[in-house]
Amino acid sequence: MALTVQKFGGSSVASPEHIQRVARRVADTVDQGNSCVVVVSAMGDTTDDLIDLACKVSSKRPAREMDMLLTTGEQISIALLAMALQDLGKDSVSFTGWQAGIRTEAVHSKARITDMDPSRIFAELEEGKIVVVAGFQGVSEDGDITTLGRGGSDTTAVALAAALKADLCEIYTDVEGVYSTDPRVVKFARKIPEISYDEMLELANLGAAVLHPRAVEYAKQYNVPLMVRSSFKSNPGTLVKEEALMEKGIIVRGIAHDLNVAKVALVGVPNRNDNLQAVFQTLAKENINVDIIVQSVVHNDRSDISFTVAKDDLHRTIEVLTQLKTRLGANEIVCEEELAKVSIVGAGMISNPGVAAQMFQVLSENGMFIKMVSTSEIKVSCVIDASDVHKAVRVLHTAFGLDAVEAAAVAK
Amino acid sequence: MALTVQKFGGSSVASPEHIQRVARRVADTVDQGNSCVVVVSAMGDTTDDLIDLACKVSSKRPAREMDMLLTTGEQISIALLAMALQDLGKDSVSFTGWQAGIRTEAVHSKARITDMDPSRIFAELEEGKIVVVAGFQGVSEDGDITTLGRGGSDTTAVALAAALKADLCEIYTDVEGVYSTDPRVVKFARKIPEISYDEMLELANLGAAVLHPRAVEYAKQYNVPLMVRSSFKSNPGTLVKEEALMEKGIIVRGIAHDLNVAKVALVGVPNRNDNLQAVFQTLAKENINVDIIVQSVVHNDRSDISFTVAKDDLHRTIEVLTQLKTRLGANEIVCEEELAKVSIVGAGMISNPGVAAQMFQVLSENGMFIKMVSTSEIKVSCVIDASDVHKAVRVLHTAFGLDAVEAAAVAK
Repeated sequence: MALTVQKFGGSSVASPEHIQRVARRVADTVDQGNSCVVVVSAMGDTTDDLIDLACKVSSKRPAREMDMLLTTGEQISIALLAMALQDLGKDSVSFTGWQAGIRTEAVHSKARITDMDPSRIFAELEEGKIVVVAGFQGVSEDGDITTLGRGGSDTTAVALAAALKADLCEIYTDVEGVYSTDPRVVKFARKIPEISYDEMLELANLGAAVLHPRAVEYAKQYNVPLMVRSSFKSNPGTLVKEEALMEKGIIVRGIAHDLNVAKVALVGVPNRNDNLQAVFQTLAKENINVDIIVQSVVHNDRSDISFTVAKDDLHRTIEVLTQLKTRLGANEIVCEEELAKVSIVGAGMISNPGVAAQMFQVLSENGMFIKMVSTSEIKVSCVIDASDVHKAVRVLHTAFGLDAVEAAAVAK
Repeated sequence: MALTVQKFGGSSVASPEHIQRVARRVADTVDQGNSCVVVVSAMGDTTDDLIDLACKVSSKRPAREMDMLLTTGEQISIALLAMALQDLGKDSVSFTGWQAGIRTEAVHSKARITDMDPSRIFAELEEGKIVVVAGFQGVSEDGDITTLGRGGSDTTAVALAAALKADLCEIYTDVEGVYSTDPRVVKFARKIPEISYDEMLELANLGAAVLHPRAVEYAKQYNVPLMVRSSFKSNPGTLVKEEALMEKGIIVRGIAHDLNVAKVALVGVPNRNDNLQAVFQTLAKENINVDIIVQSVVHNDRSDISFTVAKDDLHRTIEVLTQLKTRLGANEIVCEEELAKVSIVGAGMISNPGVAAQMFQVLSENGMFIKMVSTSEIKVSCVIDASDVHKAVRVLHTAFGLDAVEAAAVAK
């Protein structure tokens, strides 16, 4: 008998009918002889409706009270799912975050889990019950209700799977798994059967929205096998685990792209050894996330410092740099907006030199100019013109042998 | 500086605008130098909407999960009110039932409060905060969320006032206070300035919906002064306390009536000393509440046993009695439906004999036939024809000097 933690997101529990369908799905798992803990998010638009209410009442919307408000969304879902399960004759019990023993920092709207006490869940599982837990929420040491921020329900599921030493954590979603790239961009994108935590982390950080990076990090840390699969179909999904088998002849696992990229360059910054840190410490203080950084020495005594930020942060970044410019002694600030980042990810790169070079070649042969490059052991990212990005994804997908079987057939 | 517990019902927090108005009202109390704990119910139709959702998902609707579901209604209200108060510059914090230390029996949908631990509330009050508490809910020893059942938010407010030794518990509602009788029946009904717990209990039990009997009982038990007043107007309301001053010349405080009355008679029951108990134990087992009971010996060896029940229970009552009839040896079962109960309530009756006689005289002079009578120290109830009841309330209201000043003027 296996213990499975199953997580269903907001779109999977969007209506009473959806909840009944999830209940049948959970009941099936139990009927196959498994124990089940189910984590659910708030129903469809509930969270947005609650935020609307808050906006009508308050211009400040203090974080503690927003957490108090928003956590009702998951509480509604767990009660309804537990009821639906009982209607199917399955003994079940629902728990809020605090009841499930999910303890967090005393930080609102984005608390991190500090500690898990799954004793109540264990007790109910031993009595043969299905335990339904509210995702996204926990309780601080002071007894305040907290939320885990974006991707919170995935994180709840993985943390519970770790604490309960579950055999598997299944993340049910509206797609069938993790794809080699965005199926909206590449028709022949294919579902990846297995992927390693590190690869998944890179893909998640690079914009593959199917799993939140925090949940993947947590899964990696506690070695929890994760299965991403469809709420609506019974096909197997994508298994995320420590060591994923590479398919024959494939080095790159997936291709990600991100259109939310702006580039900023500080031109002609005098080469003083505290200038670089001054720039990025100041940006960090302003909570501006910097992605790719390139420093190039243009003369003996001056450098250009270029980096990318999210487009939403561009305006503030320029404000901050304008204030710094004189202190740094820089010549000018240049920025560019119509950019995108395309990335190839694959653990196979470590043992296959020349993958980056192959990427540059493919892009260049297709007439694309690479403006910035960033690499890790298992990833290469290039910043290119936004107008080129969809084509770039397609040609890289083909070049690295990722096109699905149907595409190969078409090519013949 | 006084400590006040203020309770606002669902109609007082029905919309974001209502919540902002409640916030201003609470802020005014604080600006006058008082400390404030505020208890709120779920917004307007929230509870009904949640019940609808549950009905769509489940035919069983287990009580534990219904409590989990319905308590989100008050949690939404407290978060929004705390936000609205902070928008007015008032430091405030919201607490669910479990956070507020409201401990109950491990019974769902109608738990009784067993214990209060107001330490967190005290701590926040000491920091100068307004504490907003979810009504209607508590937590069992096992850590399950429970609800207090009908009138639950009033009970929460009174229990908090008792535990905090508050100077006053104000119940804000959509009427201006407790009236001498139903203003929809008697135009010259008047607001009662003061009333004793016992009188209020009788009126509440007799159908005055403004306060739930449980809350009044709790207030009496812990000697908490209660003020019932309007959420919309600033007029003083009705003060409920241990010893209420009687106005000069007035013995009866209020008149209640109830149209949900059916009479059942077991005719010709042999006089065996276990017959009476057999009837009422059986009804109690079936959860049928019996109100007035009259036994009259018609012959040496046979009696008639008559009693009243709520109309909804009449059908089941007759079923139960039909099964009992042979065992009891009764001749027949007779029932009557078009009945009503009219009651006069006043602590002054204890020291004023003849009040009951005066009531009978007034009804009889007005051509009404009294079918049953029941009395307590501070109440007389008569069962009469339903068609007479509004007239009965009016003539009694005038006869016992309760008509408001305008009526007296009209009479002259």
